[in-house]
Amino acid sequence: MSMDVRALEWTDGGLRLLDQTVLPARVEHLVVRDVDALVDAIRRLVVRGAPALGVAGAFGVAIVLRQADREGWDDAARDAAIARVREARPTAVNLAAGVDRVVPFVAKGAEAVAAEAQALLDEDVRGNRAIGRLGADWILARSADRPLRVLTHCNAGALATAGWGTALGVVRELHGRGRVEMVYADETRPLLQGSRLTAWELAQAGIPCTVQADGAAPSTILRGLADVAVIGADRIAANGDTANKIGSVGVALACAAAGIPLVVAAPWSTVDLSLPDGDGIPIEERPAAEVLTAGRVRTAPDGVAAFNPAFDVTPARLVTALVTETGVLEISAGTTPGSAAP
Amino acid sequence: MSMDVRALEWTDGGLRLLDQTVLPARVEHLVVRDVDALVDAIRRLVVRGAPALGVAGAFGVAIVLRQADREGWDDAARDAAIARVREARPTAVNLAAGVDRVVPFVAKGAEAVAAEAQALLDEDVRGNRAIGRLGADWILARSADRPLRVLTHCNAGALATAGWGTALGVVRELHGRGRVEMVYADETRPLLQGSRLTAWELAQAGIPCTVQADGAAPSTILRGLADVAVIGADRIAANGDTANKIGSVGVALACAAAGIPLVVAAPWSTVDLSLPDGDGIPIEERPAAEVLTAGRVRTAPDGVAAFNPAFDVTPARLVTALVTETGVLEISAGTTPGSAAP
Repeated sequence: MSMDVRALEWTDGGLRLLDQTVLPARVEHLVVRDVDALVDAIRRLVVRGAPALGVAGAFGVAIVLRQADREGWDDAARDAAIARVREARPTAVNLAAGVDRVVPFVAKGAEAVAAEAQALLDEDVRGNRAIGRLGADWILARSADRPLRVLTHCNAGALATAGWGTALGVVRELHGRGRVEMVYADETRPLLQGSRLTAWELAQAGIPCTVQADGAAPSTILRGLADVAVIGADRIAANGDTANKIGSVGVALACAAAGIPLVVAAPWSTVDLSLPDGDGIPIEERPAAEVLTAGRVRTAPDGVAAFNPAFDVTPARLVTALVTETGVLEISAGTTPGSAAP
Repeated sequence: MSMDVRALEWTDGGLRLLDQTVLPARVEHLVVRDVDALVDAIRRLVVRGAPALGVAGAFGVAIVLRQADREGWDDAARDAAIARVREARPTAVNLAAGVDRVVPFVAKGAEAVAAEAQALLDEDVRGNRAIGRLGADWILARSADRPLRVLTHCNAGALATAGWGTALGVVRELHGRGRVEMVYADETRPLLQGSRLTAWELAQAGIPCTVQADGAAPSTILRGLADVAVIGADRIAANGDTANKIGSVGVALACAAAGIPLVVAAPWSTVDLSLPDGDGIPIEERPAAEVLTAGRVRTAPDGVAAFNPAFDVTPARLVTALVTETGVLEISAGTTPGSAAP
């Protein structure tokens, strides 16, 4: 039986987060009770992944209300703290959406907000289960009758969501149907969410996993070693342009060249209909030190600069299918398995 | 004035190697005097880069002859040792070619072999200077009249050659003409030759450099932040298919999608006319531990598998130009700057 992985959980003491910065070496939890600690946890990626950030943002409002009550804040201070949570990271639309979802409950107090956040959490898990089923159905309808080799990038699993996962929800569902031969997990530099988190999460679930350098992903695809790539998303524009972890667009280009499908699995809340295309998606740039170090060891020479965008935008024409809890959008019809020239 | 970087140098005591496994933290040399130490140094990447491996292989035969003399080996033992040097790494054609170049001098003894190896070293430096001039000419003839943003992958510099460099020889030449704004150096996981070696080598030469994760390269190109990508090669098939460090084909796909040129800079000795296409190029797979660790710290969970091909093959259709010391082959004509749709 696989262990149940919970990235975040509401408790009487506060929001209990599985500290994703120390996995897989240590399984430790952090209980967040005030806005400073929450914003710090979000920025340091103690909790990360677009859907999980949405839930963290919603519970974050409850944390703010409790703190406002304890410390006697006025409404302006309270609202400023809510805005800080909402803007702790810029790319994933879900964080702001999670905050916005519970703001109508602020007048009713912390417990009403927490109840609405818990409803969001429960919906996220249910939605992920639906994404898993719909994604697996779509992939299997287009695949040879054998276990598949699935490539994924970063971590769009239980750790990135309220539970089960989006891209890894599809993988879990395929595995439950006996149709996973191997998951190729890109290590996902600089912070190694693939090597540290996806490999750990798949091991907990008993799903076979092979880690590779991000640079290896395009050739793994071009050499015919993967049947499908499944990734998550942090924000999707109205035309289907998809922001996801840096490195995703390289996977997408290789899928198109090899004629295998690129499946984006994400809750509908990730779609930002206010943006006509991906040009409007803000791309977070993270500290240079993340790139200039590896395993917390300085590897680059002193004084060298680094460029560290956390996300890239995959153009809609490279997204074969977008799987949400409400159905599958076949954004780019031309790249069903085997249909494109290698 | 920039420091002169020498990856390898023949001395009375043996072959003196700049230990590339400890750069940039430490500048240390290793003097190799016997075949075991040389094969180990080649496998551990103390010396690496296709042209440098060719020179190391040629001097390696002289090392074998000195050792055979010292230890009283018969011809069979001597030839077996030469074969071990020749096969220490499989992908770069240059290593075997460097050995083969000096084998006709074996009967004349170690000093004659060393003299021929030194001739190869000198030719390599002269060839790299020519590659630099020809590559810079080709790029500048097709570029706007301003300093350029150049993206490179791995290290094809002085450290990968007998001196000056191939891809970085082009960069050095462009810099000498005042036409480099910035070099984007992919860090090149798993062994970080870009972050550790290219960044260090460019810093020695006073050339501005920004390190990025390998996954960032395709989006840097698609976002219009690079004018040209210049990479080296480990083996080039007769049709132009090019084996280079893992991650190169992702750069190549992005260049084609963005309509910027992918320039491969390599000595003519890298071309293997015995292979009709890239399918015949042997791809070295290196230890899983290289991927499962970062900065010598274990990052992946215990028990997880890794796939660690050291090279990938870029199809000829994605190679805009191949620059050798004898001229520029425009392999894929369609992707001159700005000619392709973004």
